[in-house]
Amino acid sequence: MSINMEENKIVFIGAGNLATNLAKAFCDKHIKIDQIYSRTELSAKTLADAVEADYTTTLEDIVNDADIYIVSLKDDALTELMPKIIVGKEKALMAHTSGSLPLDIWPDSIKRKGVFYPLQTFSKQRIVDFRNIHTFVESNNPADLNLLKQLAGCVTDEVTELSSEKRRQIHLAAVFACNFTNHMYALAEKLLKKYDLPFDYMLPLIEETERKAHVLSPKEAQTGPAVRYDERIINKHLDLLADEPEMQQIYQLISKSIHKL
Amino acid sequence: MSINMEENKIVFIGAGNLATNLAKAFCDKHIKIDQIYSRTELSAKTLADAVEADYTTTLEDIVNDADIYIVSLKDDALTELMPKIIVGKEKALMAHTSGSLPLDIWPDSIKRKGVFYPLQTFSKQRIVDFRNIHTFVESNNPADLNLLKQLAGCVTDEVTELSSEKRRQIHLAAVFACNFTNHMYALAEKLLKKYDLPFDYMLPLIEETERKAHVLSPKEAQTGPAVRYDERIINKHLDLLADEPEMQQIYQLISKSIHKL
Repeated sequence: MSINMEENKIVFIGAGNLATNLAKAFCDKHIKIDQIYSRTELSAKTLADAVEADYTTTLEDIVNDADIYIVSLKDDALTELMPKIIVGKEKALMAHTSGSLPLDIWPDSIKRKGVFYPLQTFSKQRIVDFRNIHTFVESNNPADLNLLKQLAGCVTDEVTELSSEKRRQIHLAAVFACNFTNHMYALAEKLLKKYDLPFDYMLPLIEETERKAHVLSPKEAQTGPAVRYDERIINKHLDLLADEPEMQQIYQLISKSIHKL
Repeated sequence: MSINMEENKIVFIGAGNLATNLAKAFCDKHIKIDQIYSRTELSAKTLADAVEADYTTTLEDIVNDADIYIVSLKDDALTELMPKIIVGKEKALMAHTSGSLPLDIWPDSIKRKGVFYPLQTFSKQRIVDFRNIHTFVESNNPADLNLLKQLAGCVTDEVTELSSEKRRQIHLAAVFACNFTNHMYALAEKLLKKYDLPFDYMLPLIEETERKAHVLSPKEAQTGPAVRYDERIINKHLDLLADEPEMQQIYQLISKSIHKL
């Protein structure tokens, strides 16, 4: 069954990093977005202008006649605003974009429940190419599952149906692979700033570390003092971190974990 | 002063990941390598064959008439084997490739001391393009510093003179940016294996995380539950890690560190 996306009226509730990237990807594929809601006027207006949509900063002014609502709020905000969000939208497909919230966060009054979760790190300052982004969809009924698959299929080649449980597991793994990885960059950056050395020195290194993961298992690809458990170097590094007790602790814990794995 | 590299007889002591990549990069630039030493015959022979050099597995059989010895051993091995390595090589330029050993690891009997440190994660299975690899050189005399700069300049555009102290600081930052980053990939891989989900799902994510570091400060680029300190998600993730106490500890420590930074 093929669905003409032009027949579906789409509204975005939320104008954060993910919503901005997704709405722009839709717009590039000529999928019309009718309205953007954000409580922050600048966010609402900026995204609405970019995708030629209307906008509102008042929950009560979100139109009720859309077919699909993409709800992309922080988990806490979604839970808190839920009672207000769903008013008058009982017939629409409600899809949230959270990695960790289950499908049944939608209350029973919502008959068409959905999840539309693109696995990526999004920033407003940097619009990514959606084509290779794994997007995981879920619904409580086959027709809407199909609709979400088609909608995702307009912007990416990688669309997979996935349960709430599996999505939560992927989200946890992604925190390690992305957020924690980025924090290792941030700690390196912090050290280099302190030592008056440019972070740019690290770029070919972190690029190669990432590329290796495409061809070698990260476990097999590991190099450096921890995997050899070279105590002389490890102790020297811990000495160097003497005035950074938190980084010292991180260094120790991760080195042990590398050696163990 | 330009030096003809063909006039310099080069010997590699060590045939590990770094030596393999460096020797092959030299070979590609038609820099002749005379001999390879490794105590492991397979390593010695494999690299020697690849770069059309002789090889030996006996320290005493390393030729004494070379101009430059590139000593690429694990730090412990270099320290241990030092007395045997230097015999008869008092007139040659001795350069080690360690990020953490100082220039003066070379004893006083060696008059021409050097360091040749390419900052990269090397694996034998994966030969990297040397052109963009930052290579840090150091010597106790200007002529040899120049020689090392020229030698490095044959394979990379990024050659910098750097003191032993600064090199050690870079090496520490690199452990965070590369080894610890790779371990975050490895932990994600471990989780996904356990959950019967493919690691490939992570690849566009880790690629974008890495690319972001080229254009945004990692500190600014951070996303995810820890930077917002979303306790609901963090606690859910810690629950999911209940049977992995070590990963739980890493999760907790890094999340706190992200939030603090």
